[in-house]
Amino acid sequence: MSLGVCYYPEHWPEEKWESDAERMKALGLSFARIGEFSWALLEPEPGRYEFGWLDKAVGTLHAAGLEVMLGTPTATPPKWLVDAHDDMLAWDEEGRPRGFGSRRHYCFSSETYRRHSRRITEVLARRYGQHPAVTMWQTDNEFGCHDTVRSYSPMARLAFRDWLREKYTDIDALNEAWGNRFWSMLYHSFDEIELPHLTVTEPNPSHTLDFYRFSSDQVIDFHKEQAEIIRLHAPHATITHNVMGHYYHYDHHELGRHVDVLTWDSYPLGFLAWSRSSDEHKQRYLRQGDPDFAGYHHDLYRGCSAFGVIEQQPGPVNWAPYNPCPLPGMVRLWTVEAFAHGAHFSAPFRWRQVPFAQEQNHAGLLRPDDQPAQGYGEIEEAAGVLAKLGPEEEAARVAILFSYDSFWMAEIQPQGNAYHTEDIVSDWYAAARSLGLDVDIVHPSVELSRYDVVLIPSLLPLTEEVAWRLEESGAALIAGARSGSKNENGNIIPGLAPGPLKRLLPLTVTRSETIPPGPGGKAGAGHWHIWRDEVECDAEPALTDEAGRAVLYRFGEHRYFAALPDRALLREELRALCAARGIETADLPEGLRLRSGRGHRFAFNYGPEPVELPAGLGPSDGEFLTGGRTLPPAGIAAWRLP
Amino acid sequence: MSLGVCYYPEHWPEEKWESDAERMKALGLSFARIGEFSWALLEPEPGRYEFGWLDKAVGTLHAAGLEVMLGTPTATPPKWLVDAHDDMLAWDEEGRPRGFGSRRHYCFSSETYRRHSRRITEVLARRYGQHPAVTMWQTDNEFGCHDTVRSYSPMARLAFRDWLREKYTDIDALNEAWGNRFWSMLYHSFDEIELPHLTVTEPNPSHTLDFYRFSSDQVIDFHKEQAEIIRLHAPHATITHNVMGHYYHYDHHELGRHVDVLTWDSYPLGFLAWSRSSDEHKQRYLRQGDPDFAGYHHDLYRGCSAFGVIEQQPGPVNWAPYNPCPLPGMVRLWTVEAFAHGAHFSAPFRWRQVPFAQEQNHAGLLRPDDQPAQGYGEIEEAAGVLAKLGPEEEAARVAILFSYDSFWMAEIQPQGNAYHTEDIVSDWYAAARSLGLDVDIVHPSVELSRYDVVLIPSLLPLTEEVAWRLEESGAALIAGARSGSKNENGNIIPGLAPGPLKRLLPLTVTRSETIPPGPGGKAGAGHWHIWRDEVECDAEPALTDEAGRAVLYRFGEHRYFAALPDRALLREELRALCAARGIETADLPEGLRLRSGRGHRFAFNYGPEPVELPAGLGPSDGEFLTGGRTLPPAGIAAWRLP
Amino acid sequence: MSLGVCYYPEHWPEEKWESDAERMKALGLSFARIGEFSWALLEPEPGRYEFGWLDKAVGTLHAAGLEVMLGTPTATPPKWLVDAHDDMLAWDEEGRPRGFGSRRHYCFSSETYRRHSRRITEVLARRYGQHPAVTMWQTDNEFGCHDTVRSYSPMARLAFRDWLREKYTDIDALNEAWGNRFWSMLYHSFDEIELPHLTVTEPNPSHTLDFYRFSSDQVIDFHKEQAEIIRLHAPHATITHNVMGHYYHYDHHELGRHVDVLTWDSYPLGFLAWSRSSDEHKQRYLRQGDPDFAGYHHDLYRGCSAFGVIEQQPGPVNWAPYNPCPLPGMVRLWTVEAFAHGAHFSAPFRWRQVPFAQEQNHAGLLRPDDQPAQGYGEIEEAAGVLAKLGPEEEAARVAILFSYDSFWMAEIQPQGNAYHTEDIVSDWYAAARSLGLDVDIVHPSVELSRYDVVLIPSLLPLTEEVAWRLEESGAALIAGARSGSKNENGNIIPGLAPGPLKRLLPLTVTRSETIPPGPGGKAGAGHWHIWRDEVECDAEPALTDEAGRAVLYRFGEHRYFAALPDRALLREELRALCAARGIETADLPEGLRLRSGRGHRFAFNYGPEPVELPAGLGPSDGEFLTGGRTLPPAGIAAWRLP
Ligand SMILES: [Zn+2]
Ligand SMILES: [Zn+2]
Ligand SMILES: [Zn+2]
Repeated sequence: MSLGVCYYPEHWPEEKWESDAERMKALGLSFARIGEFSWALLEPEPGRYEFGWLDKAVGTLHAAGLEVMLGTPTATPPKWLVDAHDDMLAWDEEGRPRGFGSRRHYCFSSETYRRHSRRITEVLARRYGQHPAVTMWQTDNEFGCHDTVRSYSPMARLAFRDWLREKYTDIDALNEAWGNRFWSMLYHSFDEIELPHLTVTEPNPSHTLDFYRFSSDQVIDFHKEQAEIIRLHAPHATITHNVMGHYYHYDHHELGRHVDVLTWDSYPLGFLAWSRSSDEHKQRYLRQGDPDFAGYHHDLYRGCSAFGVIEQQPGPVNWAPYNPCPLPGMVRLWTVEAFAHGAHFSAPFRWRQVPFAQEQNHAGLLRPDDQPAQGYGEIEEAAGVLAKLGPEEEAARVAILFSYDSFWMAEIQPQGNAYHTEDIVSDWYAAARSLGLDVDIVHPSVELSRYDVVLIPSLLPLTEEVAWRLEESGAALIAGARSGSKNENGNIIPGLAPGPLKRLLPLTVTRSETIPPGPGGKAGAGHWHIWRDEVECDAEPALTDEAGRAVLYRFGEHRYFAALPDRALLREELRALCAARGIETADLPEGLRLRSGRGHRFAFNYGPEPVELPAGLGPSDGEFLTGGRTLPPAGIAAWRLP
Repeated sequence: MSLGVCYYPEHWPEEKWESDAERMKALGLSFARIGEFSWALLEPEPGRYEFGWLDKAVGTLHAAGLEVMLGTPTATPPKWLVDAHDDMLAWDEEGRPRGFGSRRHYCFSSETYRRHSRRITEVLARRYGQHPAVTMWQTDNEFGCHDTVRSYSPMARLAFRDWLREKYTDIDALNEAWGNRFWSMLYHSFDEIELPHLTVTEPNPSHTLDFYRFSSDQVIDFHKEQAEIIRLHAPHATITHNVMGHYYHYDHHELGRHVDVLTWDSYPLGFLAWSRSSDEHKQRYLRQGDPDFAGYHHDLYRGCSAFGVIEQQPGPVNWAPYNPCPLPGMVRLWTVEAFAHGAHFSAPFRWRQVPFAQEQNHAGLLRPDDQPAQGYGEIEEAAGVLAKLGPEEEAARVAILFSYDSFWMAEIQPQGNAYHTEDIVSDWYAAARSLGLDVDIVHPSVELSRYDVVLIPSLLPLTEEVAWRLEESGAALIAGARSGSKNENGNIIPGLAPGPLKRLLPLTVTRSETIPPGPGGKAGAGHWHIWRDEVECDAEPALTDEAGRAVLYRFGEHRYFAALPDRALLREELRALCAARGIETADLPEGLRLRSGRGHRFAFNYGPEPVELPAGLGPSDGEFLTGGRTLPPAGIAAWRLP
Repeated sequence: MSLGVCYYPEHWPEEKWESDAERMKALGLSFARIGEFSWALLEPEPGRYEFGWLDKAVGTLHAAGLEVMLGTPTATPPKWLVDAHDDMLAWDEEGRPRGFGSRRHYCFSSETYRRHSRRITEVLARRYGQHPAVTMWQTDNEFGCHDTVRSYSPMARLAFRDWLREKYTDIDALNEAWGNRFWSMLYHSFDEIELPHLTVTEPNPSHTLDFYRFSSDQVIDFHKEQAEIIRLHAPHATITHNVMGHYYHYDHHELGRHVDVLTWDSYPLGFLAWSRSSDEHKQRYLRQGDPDFAGYHHDLYRGCSAFGVIEQQPGPVNWAPYNPCPLPGMVRLWTVEAFAHGAHFSAPFRWRQVPFAQEQNHAGLLRPDDQPAQGYGEIEEAAGVLAKLGPEEEAARVAILFSYDSFWMAEIQPQGNAYHTEDIVSDWYAAARSLGLDVDIVHPSVELSRYDVVLIPSLLPLTEEVAWRLEESGAALIAGARSGSKNENGNIIPGLAPGPLKRLLPLTVTRSETIPPGPGGKAGAGHWHIWRDEVECDAEPALTDEAGRAVLYRFGEHRYFAALPDRALLREELRALCAARGIETADLPEGLRLRSGRGHRFAFNYGPEPVELPAGLGPSDGEFLTGGRTLPPAGIAAWRLP
C-alpha cells in the first residue's frame, strides 16, 4: 500500500531534480515512475546510447529514498527509427499508415519493430536490472491508446494469416467455422485471406472475431517479449503494464497472467464526458466523475491480477471534450477509494504540469511555476488517512462474470445500436453497488464457490464446463438475455440460447428483438430496455410488462431476465435474492458508495451535496477512523468492521 | 397469385432437403427461389463446375411439386476470381477499391467482370434452361445494395468517357450542355473528363447528373446481358430481378422494360428505423412498419412492370439500427396486402434462419432448430385468405407522376437539406391513401387519360410533350413547387418554371426559397414546408399563409402549390378535387389503409390498437370474405365490391 | 463611396453586353467587377491567348461610363494546365489530391503553379494595365474558400521545411521551441519534419501552429507576387482581394498591408444558417441575418485596411443548408450599412442569375429572364439614400483587440469543444453594439491612445510591448480569461497567465477549467460559460457565482473576467465603464443596431417587427435624412449628428 508519482526528469533542468525528489519524499511518496517516453534521449542516434541523464535521475531519486518504476520507451520510437523502417507503422482501418508526430506509431505485427523493442528493452534491463532503486518495471505505455491495437498494415495481414494457419491448420476447418459457404466466401488457402476492412458491406462476423482475437494476442506477445527480457535481468522486480479505463480491444485477463501487478490509469472526469450518460448525469457529476467509474475498473482489473493505479487524475486534464476542475477533495477520495478496493499502490499523473507540447493543459501535483496545485495537498491528506489502515482483502459475495471475447462478439454483432456490453455490465455493477454490495468482476474460469450470487449481464459464449461449475458452486444466478447464445465462433448455439445454461435455466430463446433507446415496457420496480427475448418455457414468467411480454423467469434461486432490466428493476430482484442469502443490503442516497475489506468499511460521497450515512451503517461504537455520519461533497468516512 | 420462399439448400445437409421441400409444399407454397449466392460452390476453381448438388436440390424441389426460381450468382464472385482480376472491383467515392469479404464486390463497368458474368450465366442457362422445374430466373441480387451502383474505378472512368462520347459526339456540345464556361471548366476532349468526385467543392451538377445516368445505364446493361443469355436458353421462363425499397440509384422504369416481372424485397420494419420519420411515428409503428411503406413500393414498382414480392420480412431482421419483432399478424398482413396491390407472387426471405455468418440474426419461416417461427403460421393463414380471391386488377383514378431522372436532379441540387424527393412523393402518396384512394405511381410517359386526378409532387424536368398529354388527358392536375423548373441537363428552364406546364398553370416562378425543417406558414387545413416559390400571375392566390405569402393557385381544376403542402393541407385540396370528379373518399382512422381491385376491397390495420371501419365502408350485404367491421392490430378485412 | 456589380460577360451573348452596361449605369452603378474565373477563355490552349472578347467587354463597359475591376483568373486554372502539372494540386488532410472539376484546385506551395500564376497575371497586366476603364484589380478570388489554405501536398511539405529552416536556422532551436523532448519528438534535421496530419493522436501544437503560420504566409506571398506585377504595369490602380466572412485560415491583417482596399463578400443569410446560434435565433433572423454579422466583419476588415464589400448577397443563395429569400428591404439595408461602417464601395454579386452550373440557384440583380429581381430595386433605393450622405470616418472610442495568431492557438488547443474564438469575440462585439456603441476591431499593434475602453475577449499571446502600450494608452481594459496565457510558440507563459498583463491586472491564473455548453454559474446580470480560471490575487473578486467561484476582478478601471461572461454579464460591466468614461450608451430594442460616423448617425432594424427609436436617439431637430422614429422590419433611419 504505497503512493508514488509519475515523473519526467527529462522535461526539467537537472538543477531541479534533487529538490523534486526531496519534495516527493516529504509528501509521503515512496516511488517515482519514469522513463517511458524517453527513447529519443536514450538513443539519440542509431546505436548511440546516452544513459548519463537517466543514471543521474535514478540516482537522485534513490538518494532521496525513493524507489523507481522504470518504463520501456517503446510507445514513442524516435523519428530516425521510423524513417529507417516504414514497415514498422500501423495502418488505420481506412488503409493509411499512421505516421510519426505524436506517439504509439508502431504496428504490433511488425517484426522489424519487435526486434527494436527487444533491443531497447534488453539495453535498459541490462543497465538498470540490478539497480537497487529500480524495483518495478513497466512495459511500454497504455497499449491500445488512440485505437492502436487493430492495425490494417501489410505486416498485420501476413501475421494474421499465420495466426489463422496455426489455429485452424486446414483451410476447410476455417471455412466451416466461419460459415464461409454463405455468400460464396470460401477460401482455398490462408494466403487468400484479407483483413476484415474496406469490404462492400460488413465482413463475416467470425472473420472479424478472429481478427480481434489475433490483434489482442499480438499485444500480449509484444508485452511478453519485453517482460521476459526484464525478468532475465531483474528477476525480483515487479513487472507491470498500465492499462486504461473504458478500453476493451485486447484481453486484460490474459495480460494479467503475464504481469505481477496490473496498473491502470484513472481519469474519472474525462471519461464521464465521453460516456453515453444523460446530460443531467454528466452535469451532476461534472467535477466528481461517475460514482461507479473508478470502482468498476478497480474491481474489473482486480479480477485480472493484483492491481494498482499508476496514473491518478490530479486536476483538470487536456483531452476530453471539456475539462473541469475536480471538486476539492476528489483527488483524496479517488486515491483512498483505490486502496479500499485493494490497490497495491496509487500514483498521480504527473509531478509537475509541463508547459509545452500536447499535454501542457494537463494538471500535475505542482503547477508549472512549481507551486502546489490541488493534488499536492490532497495526496498528502490521503497519505494521512491511509496511514491508519492496513491492507485490505476482498470478501465480496457477489460476482459479475465478464469476458473480453464476449465483448468482441457483441461489438461485432450488437443486433441493435443501443447494445453496448460495457454499458450493460457497468449498469449491473452499479445496481449492485447502489445496494451497498461489494462486487467482484471475474472471468468465467475462476473458482465460483466463494460467491452467493453470480450475475451474468452479457456472456454470449458460455461453455458446458462453466455451466457445470456454476451449478456446482451453489450460487444463485441472475442471467441477462443473450447469455449462452453463441458458440466459440460467434455463431448461434445449436439448440438455441441459453445453451449450456439450460441446465440451470430450463427454457429456450426462440428469437430476440432490439428496440430504440428508452424503456421497452414496465416491469417490477423498473423497465426493460434495449433487448428482449421470446422464450419457450414450461414455467410462467415471474414478471411481464404491461403488454404481457415475459421479462423475468425464476427457477428456484436462479433468474433469467428475458428482457434486459434497467437499474431499478435489477436492483429489486437482486435485493430480494441477497435477503434470501443473508447478504445485508442498504438503501444508499444517490452518489454514496460503500466498500468493505476484511477489516474496514468505507463510505464515499460522489454527490454534490452532503449526505447522511443511512441508519444501520457506521461504527457500532461510534468511532470513525476518518470522517463521520455526515459526508460533505467528496467526503470519506471509514470505520472498523466488528 | 402464388406463394414461394427463398431457400439456400447449400447451407444445410442434403438429408434435410427432401423434408424441407415437402414442408414447403404442405405449407401451400408453390416455388422456391435458390442459387443466387452460390458461385463458389458451383465453380470452386476456375472452369471446374460442380453441378451435382444443384441438380439434386432442383430435383428434390421438383419432386415435391415445387417450381424453382434460379438466380445467377454474380452478386458474390469467388475469391479466386477477384484475385485474378483486380480490375473487377468497384471503387468508392473516396477513391479506394471495395474489396472481397462480403458481397457485391464488382464494378458494373469492368469488362473483365462482364465477361465472367456472361460466362457463368451461360453455363447455368445451358444446364437448367430446359429443366421443367426452373420456370423463373433472377439476375444477380439487389443491384445497388450497399451503394454499389456508382463506382469511381478507373474502369468506370473509361466507360463514362465512352458514354459521354456517344451521347454528345462533340466535346463542345458537352461544354454547352453542362455550362462549362462557368469557372473555366471547359474541356477539349472527352478523355480529359474525370469522375465527379474528390473535387475541391461540388462538381458541375450537369456533370454529376450525366454520371448518375451513366451509372444507371451500366446496371441496366449488365442485367440485359444476363437476361438475353437466359432468354436464349429458356425462352419461356419468367425473368426477374429483385429490387429494393427506398432505393433510387438506377432507373427502375428502365429495368422494368427488360424483365417479365419486377420483384422487390419488402422489409417494413428496418426501413422505418432508417427513415426520417419522427420518433413518435417510429415508436407507434415500431412492430408494424409505416402504413404506406409497402403500398408505396407496390404501386411504384407496379408502375414499372408486372411485379411481385420476392423477399418478404418474416420476423426480426439483423441490419437495422434496432430490430423489433413484427406484431403477431403482420407477416400475414404484408403478404395479403401485396396481392391486394396486384402482386403476382410473394415469397418470404428465408426458409430457415441460418446460424452462421452475416445474417445469422435474420429470422426465417423456421427457427435454426427447425421449429416453426412466426412467419410459418402466418404464411399459412395468408394462403387461406388468398384462396378465396382471384387476381386483382388495378383501377386507380388517381396517379402520381414520378421519374428517376428528376430524383437525381433534386438529389444533386436540393437547394435545401430538407428537400428529399422520396419524402415528398411518399408524403403525397400517403395523403391520397389516407383518403382511402387507390393510387398509381407512374412515369410521365404513360397514357394518362385513364386518370381523373394527376399529382406531380416533384418533377423537375417536364417536356412539352408531357404537358400536352396532360392537357389532352382531361385530368385535374395538382403540381408542387419545382415542377417543370429544369431542362434536360438540369439547368434552369428558359422562361422559368413551370416551363411547359404554363400551358395548364399560367404563372411564372420568379424565385424560390428553402427553409429549415418545420412549418413555414399556416395555410388551409395545414402548413407549407421546405420549399416556397414566388410567383408572377394574373390570378390571385387561392390560399396564402399568415404572412400573406402565396401558397396555392387554382386554375379551373388545376392546382399549383407554390409552397410545398404538408399532408393535411394537400389532403383537403385533394379531397375537394375528388368530390368534384365524383371520386369517393373516406375519413380513415390513423393507421387504417384500404385497397381495391376490380373485384374486392381490402382494409388493413397498421395501428397498434383496434379500429372500426368507418360508416360507408364494408360489404353492402354485411358479408366479409375475411375479418369484420372491427379490425384488431394487424387485422385484415376484405369484401366483395358490388 | 460608390456602387458596382459583379459581372460575367462570358456567360452571356455579346448582344446583351451593351444593354447590360447601360442598365448598370442607369441603376446608379459606377463599376463592374469582371474576369476572375475566365482563364479557360483567355487562354484556351497553352500560350494561345484570346483577348478579343475581354477587350470588347471592357470597351463596352467603358463606353457606358463604367469603371472596371479586373480579376486575375487564378482561382480557376484550366484543365490542360492541371493535366500538364499534377504537382500543382493541393492535397487534403486525408492525403489525397484535390482534383479538377470545380475551382481553387491548386496548392499555394506549388512552384509550378506560382510560375503560371505570375505568367497569366503578367499577360493581363500588360494588356489592361493602362486601359482607362480598368482602375481596379483583384487578385484571384476568395483565398481559402473550400478550405484551401492548408495543403498537405508533397510541395507543401518541402516548402514548410524551408520555411522552418528560415525561421529557426538550427534544428535544436526548433526542438526547444516546440518542446520536442516530450514524447521523443526530437528531430535531427529539418528534412525529417512531416506535415502535422495523419498522426496517431494529435501532433505537437507548436508544430501545427507553425504549419498554420506557414500556410498563411504562402497565401500572402501568392498575393504579393500578383500584386507586384500588377503594380508594375498599373501603378495607379487600386489593388484588392476579396476575403470571406467567418474565415480565419490566413492572416487578414497581413494581407491588408499588401492591398489598397480589402474587399469582402457579405452573405448574411447563408452564414447564419451555418453558425452555432440557437434554432430560435436562426428562425427569428431567417430572412435578415444576424444583426451583428455584417457590422462585425465591416469593423474587423476596416481594422485591416481601407475596405469595401465586393459581393453583397442580393437574394437567395445556393450553398447554405437552406436558402431563404431576404426580407424586402434587406438588400438596401445591408448596402447602406456597409457605407455607415466606412466602406469605400459595395457591389452585389451578381448582375444576372446564371441558369447553368454550380451557382444556378444563386440570385442576381436580374432574373435569368432579364427581369429585375429584389436586389435591382433595392440597390436603386440604396443609391438614393447614399446620395444624401458624404463619406464617413470612424470615431469609435471602444476597441476590441484581435489577432489571427491567437485564433490559431485556440483553434489548435481549445481545451474545451465549446471554446471558439470567433464566437467569443463576436459575442463581445455584439454586447457592445447592443449598447449602441461603435466599435473598432484591431490588431494589438495599433495605436491605442485614441480609445477609452479596450476589450480583449481572447488574446492568448500578448507581448510585454503590447501590455506597456495598453498601460500608456490610459484606456480602461476588460480582459477575458486566457488573455496573456501563452508565449509565441503557443506554450504556457512563464509565471503563468495573464503574463505581461500582470502589469495592469495583478493576479495569477493558477489553473483553468472548461465546462459543457450552457451556463456555468450566475453572476451579475448574467452568467459565465465555457471557460473559468482559478486565480491567486490579493484583491477580492468583484463578482462571484452562486457557488462562490470568482468571476470578475476589478483593478481601478481595469477588469479581468476570470470566467468568460455571457452577453448580459459583459454588457452591464461595459455599460458602467462607459458611463465612467462619459461614453453614452443606449438600451436598444432587440434587433436594432446603430452606427455613427463623424457626420451622421444610422439606425438599422434587423428584427422581424417594427421598433421605435429609444428616447434620446434621433435628430435634435426632428429631421431625418431617411426614415423616422418608427423603423419597419428592414428599416433604416439616418440623421445628422449635431
Ligand atoms: Zn498467456
Ligand atoms: Zn432499355
Ligand atoms: Zn507583409
